[in-house]
Amino acid sequence: MSKWRVLETTEIFKSGFFRVRTEKCELPDGRIMPRYYVMEFPDWVNVIAVTPEGMAIVVDQYRHAAGEVFLEIPGGSTDPRSKEDPLVAAERELLEETGYRAGRWIAIGSHSPNPATQQNRLHTFIAVDCVKVQQPQLDPYEDLVARLMPITELYERVDRGEVTHSLILASLALARSHLRKLFLIDGNPVGASF
Amino acid sequence: MSKWRVLETTEIFKSGFFRVRTEKCELPDGRIMPRYYVMEFPDWVNVIAVTPEGMAIVVDQYRHAAGEVFLEIPGGSTDPRSKEDPLVAAERELLEETGYRAGRWIAIGSHSPNPATQQNRLHTFIAVDCVKVQQPQLDPYEDLVARLMPITELYERVDRGEVTHSLILASLALARSHLRKLFLIDGNPVGASF
Repeated sequence: MSKWRVLETTEIFKSGFFRVRTEKCELPDGRIMPRYYVMEFPDWVNVIAVTPEGMAIVVDQYRHAAGEVFLEIPGGSTDPRSKEDPLVAAERELLEETGYRAGRWIAIGSHSPNPATQQNRLHTFIAVDCVKVQQPQLDPYEDLVARLMPITELYERVDRGEVTHSLILASLALARSHLRKLFLIDGNPVGASF
Repeated sequence: MSKWRVLETTEIFKSGFFRVRTEKCELPDGRIMPRYYVMEFPDWVNVIAVTPEGMAIVVDQYRHAAGEVFLEIPGGSTDPRSKEDPLVAAERELLEETGYRAGRWIAIGSHSPNPATQQNRLHTFIAVDCVKVQQPQLDPYEDLVARLMPITELYERVDRGEVTHSLILASLALARSHLRKLFLIDGNPVGASF
C-alpha cells in the first residue's frame, strides 16, 4: 500500500486559510480516481488542563454547524501567518479561553482530525499545575464558558457517552494512559504527585 | 447559551451529497457573525467488530488527504438516497470492507465528527460474534486491507498513541466501557462470555 500519485490539482475554493482543492490521482494498481476533494486547514490544538487540586478546566461551547452546545476542553487553531508552534498555540488558547496558565506542559502526540477529507493534524497537550492569572479574553465570535470539573468526572462522562465532540473524545482517549501515569485518573483523583 | 439565529444562508458549493454553505448569524448577545461556513455530509458509521476468539477486525486504509495509511476499523457513509438507517449502513460496510457478518449488534451512541464545521453525526456500533461469510467487495476507489488483531492489542495501540485517525480514536473511546462490560478488554481478552 503506497501513496497515490497526483496527476492534476485544482483549487476550487478559498477563504482565508480554509481551502478546498480537487485532485485527479492514480492509485498504486493503476486505477484513476477522477476527483478527490482535499480540504486544507491550519493545524489544531487541544489541551487537557488540570489544576493542582485535580480539576480539569472544561469549556461549554456553542458550535453552530451542529447547532448545539458541546462539553469540550480548551483548544483552537494554530496561526499559520506566524507558522505558530503548536505548544505556543496551546498556551495561547488556554489563556484566552480560560484565563489559566500551566506550570508544566506535556506534548502527548498528534492525530489527523479526518485524513479522508483534510490534511491537517490535531496536537494534544496535557497542561498541569494550572492556575488562573486573568479573565478569559475570547475571540470576537466565540460563544463559550470555561468551568472546573474533577478530571475523574470528565472521564466518567467519556465512558457514559456524554462527550459527543469526536475530536475532544480523541484527545481524551490519547491522554488516558498519560493521566493514569500522572496518577490523575483511575484511582487517584488528586494530582498530589507532581 | 442558546442557538444562534440564522439571518441569511447561501450555498457556495455542491458536489453530490457534499455541500458547503455560509450563514450570517445573530448570537444570543446580539453580535453578528457575518459568514460562518457549514459543511454538509451524510451521517457516518464506525464498527468495532469482534470475532468469538476476541479478535478485532481492523482495516489498514490509505487516506489521500493526509497521504498516509491509517490503522482503522470498518466504517463509512450512510446512503442518503435511501435515507439508510445507520445500523443497515454498519452491516453493509462491515460486509463490503471485510467479508464478515456479525451475530449481534450493539448501538453504543453517536458523536459529532466536527460540530464547528459540519452538521453530521458518526454512529458507533459494536458487532460481536463476527464470522467471515464472503470475500470483501470494495468500492471503486477504496484502497484498504482488512486483518485481525487481538482487541486488547488494539486498545494497547490506542494507549501508545498508534491510532492516529481522530474519528477512529473517538469511536474506540466511546466503546471502551462497553467492551469492558462484555469482558473483551481489561483482563479478559477472549470473548467467552457471549
